Amino acid sequence: MKNLKRFFSPRSVAVIGASSHPKKIGHVIFRNFVKEHFKGKVYPVNPNTESILGHKCYRSILDIKHAVDLAVVAVKANITPRILEECAKKGTKNIIIISGGFKEVGNVELEKKTEAVIEKYGLNVIGPNCVGIFNPYTGTDTLFLPTYRLGRPERGEISFVSQSGALGMMLLDWMKLKGYKLSKFISYGNAIDVDEADLIEYLWKDDETKIICVYMEGAKDGRKFFNIAKKVAKDKPIIVLKAGQTEAGKVAASSHTGALAGSYKIYSSVFRQTGILEAEGLENLFDYARILAYQSDPLPKGRRVQIITNGGGYGVLTADQLVKNGLKLAKPSAATIKRIKEGCPPHVIVKNPIDLTGDADSERYRLAIDAAVNDDGIDMIVVILLPQTPILSDDVVDVIAEAASKKRKPLIVLSAGGGFAEVLKKSIEECGIPTYSYPDKAASALSVLYRFSENNKRK
Amino acid sequence: MKNLKRFFSPRSVAVIGASSHPKKIGHVIFRNFVKEHFKGKVYPVNPNTESILGHKCYRSILDIKHAVDLAVVAVKANITPRILEECAKKGTKNIIIISGGFKEVGNVELEKKTEAVIEKYGLNVIGPNCVGIFNPYTGTDTLFLPTYRLGRPERGEISFVSQSGALGMMLLDWMKLKGYKLSKFISYGNAIDVDEADLIEYLWKDDETKIICVYMEGAKDGRKFFNIAKKVAKDKPIIVLKAGQTEAGKVAASSHTGALAGSYKIYSSVFRQTGILEAEGLENLFDYARILAYQSDPLPKGRRVQIITNGGGYGVLTADQLVKNGLKLAKPSAATIKRIKEGCPPHVIVKNPIDLTGDADSERYRLAIDAAVNDDGIDMIVVILLPQTPILSDDVVDVIAEAASKKRKPLIVLSAGGGFAEVLKKSIEECGIPTYSYPDKAASALSVLYRFSENNKRK
Repeated sequence: MKNLKRFFSPRSVAVIGASSHPKKIGHVIFRNFVKEHFKGKVYPVNPNTESILGHKCYRSILDIKHAVDLAVVAVKANITPRILEECAKKGTKNIIIISGGFKEVGNVELEKKTEAVIEKYGLNVIGPNCVGIFNPYTGTDTLFLPTYRLGRPERGEISFVSQSGALGMMLLDWMKLKGYKLSKFISYGNAIDVDEADLIEYLWKDDETKIICVYMEGAKDGRKFFNIAKKVAKDKPIIVLKAGQTEAGKVAASSHTGALAGSYKIYSSVFRQTGILEAEGLENLFDYARILAYQSDPLPKGRRVQIITNGGGYGVLTADQLVKNGLKLAKPSAATIKRIKEGCPPHVIVKNPIDLTGDADSERYRLAIDAAVNDDGIDMIVVILLPQTPILSDDVVDVIAEAASKKRKPLIVLSAGGGFAEVLKKSIEECGIPTYSYPDKAASALSVLYRFSENNKRK
Repeated sequence: MKNLKRFFSPRSVAVIGASSHPKKIGHVIFRNFVKEHFKGKVYPVNPNTESILGHKCYRSILDIKHAVDLAVVAVKANITPRILEECAKKGTKNIIIISGGFKEVGNVELEKKTEAVIEKYGLNVIGPNCVGIFNPYTGTDTLFLPTYRLGRPERGEISFVSQSGALGMMLLDWMKLKGYKLSKFISYGNAIDVDEADLIEYLWKDDETKIICVYMEGAKDGRKFFNIAKKVAKDKPIIVLKAGQTEAGKVAASSHTGALAGSYKIYSSVFRQTGILEAEGLENLFDYARILAYQSDPLPKGRRVQIITNGGGYGVLTADQLVKNGLKLAKPSAATIKRIKEGCPPHVIVKNPIDLTGDADSERYRLAIDAAVNDDGIDMIVVILLPQTPILSDDVVDVIAEAASKKRKPLIVLSAGGGFAEVLKKSIEECGIPTYSYPDKAASALSVLYRFSENNKRK
């Protein structure tokens, strides 16, 4: 097992190819290290520059007197092997090569030459042709975009391993917008040395990671991936989005990362055998990750779901989607029905869905959620909040957070509309309750949680 | 065919049940008429109030000296039949009953009594148990939420008929957030008189409506719906989201609007026979409506799609989704490839996807889009914009708008991420180019456009 710790928690970093020019990648990476939350030492390396942002610039990593845990390399591709030699001589074993220009553009020779240096010195290398690492816990951040251009999510429990850098950055930006939280992000590009399997294995032992999400086009070493995934998935959920499922997608993948996307049938079967959960699309990846991160303690005892809504139509659509996703509508007990009816006006419908109707306030939600939490015939709860009503106010967030904090059974929120709905969802999400906008998304997430609990029982 | 014109373009409106109490529905409806964009006369009617917002209040509609085109009724359900009698005597034929408390809560007797009055006087009634109408062209707005609580979309070409009021309002709020535009919104509730078929027929002849979207739980009169839909769908696209597809959903629907959701198989077959396009979920409804509204002139000649991207992974996922949705990847011609390669650095990949890579600027997009627009082997274009890159700036909107304005072939945009991506999409949407966040959504929308063009050829 590779020791990758110092990629994520380096005490000192050299940015090789650091630049004083604000538009250069090497400048942005260096600036992010010195201006954002990183607490360790940072050294800029560039033979043609005296100083960058007031920091003395080194001609070579060999000129730095202190130990360097991690080198981030953003230089022209052709000099990379020489730079790696210098790192090796310096004793810096962990290197991220951001630079592109290797096998993905047909430069197989250069990739082989680089590989030879890595082998010779036993280096650990992430990349090339990648955006590297973002770890909100230590401020390690090699993403070459300033924070005003690319949002960085807050500290959380979901880690994300992406073969594609651009796609990974898009998702980070989106996570920040939505208030989703992150443990570690790694873009590994051409995987010259460290591959997706190594990263999965590292995240398995990382206490800050509860869920491992992976975007992959093709595994670098199928057998290794299978063995590691099988070991890890028993212990920590792994969710994979596999691109290159069709012939057209495979051709596109081979131009992109040079990955052999392989037969999707084989991948699918590997996922099933190893216990990897498969996401059908980008949204599902995090839809599943959030419910598993926040609502898997305790896991659902069964598949009976109670819907609590203030809009009938949304309730009907959700009922349809739950059934289509292999779940069942719970039957609220006589006691539950009695309790809710006693506290509500007669036009409230206490079946499944429980329709609190358009004049529902937070107290009506409290009553219904409480009753459902205490009803043993209910395994999971979907609370639908349509905030386009005259009376519902944002204190409903407290009601939901309080119910969820009892950790009796999984509870999720379904809400949509304009700006207020977005703000509401962000607040709820920050309380550790996963939120969804559409019935199909909520139902498929609950269904994955249920499947995970079933797999868990069999272990 | 019912004459529903004065529901949407009333010269004068009486709000019966208008109130001076700011929390009352009758207050909000009246205030929206006087404070927002409505240009006609508005009369508040309430026997217990002298004046509302400085307007003299009438004891009964009969006390108003001028003609009243439309009465909006927000009174206790039990006095509705008497109010309708007064409207009839006044000569006001068009009435929207907002009030609930009829058959949806088991009050079948009252619904029958109301129906008898409608028949006796030959009234046109929308509702009861609905939120009524919003027409941005005339400012007719019976939605009982203030504009700060519920966004109203701008004037556009998509009309939306919803059996559910809450779901309809949620979608309006969401349309406003996203910058999607609206022609007419109608929530018709219990459909005591005017039903979804009447509304579809009206919108067919409405010049401001180009696309008709419908959320329905069950048709009031199946035969009538079939006949009208068959006539209209030939001429204007109708997109339906049918709720109550499963047994659980049907039960929920019957508690909600009292609708008989019926056999989904039969509905599905009716949709196919009449040429109605079916949406699988809420998002699809507007995903399909927007592409049909904006990109159906001209319709695609075939199903060959060109992807132009600045992120390889997003391109791979999109290629997969296009194929899964029955479309094909176009083969760019030798001339197209030559033209783009000549104007781009060597690391740009000119296949399908065309990967302009992470350092693409607006000019690189202009070159690629122009070449694709002029290539006869390409029927439709997906432009992927990942704005998490150092160089891409918002002038790419102009490039895309200019290409789309030539109206040579359908073009859509796929973009996602944080706040900047959202702003970018809203600007592009406002130029009449449909935008999507995820590959599956973009691909299914293109696939519906292609299917529509195929149906169109057969006519």
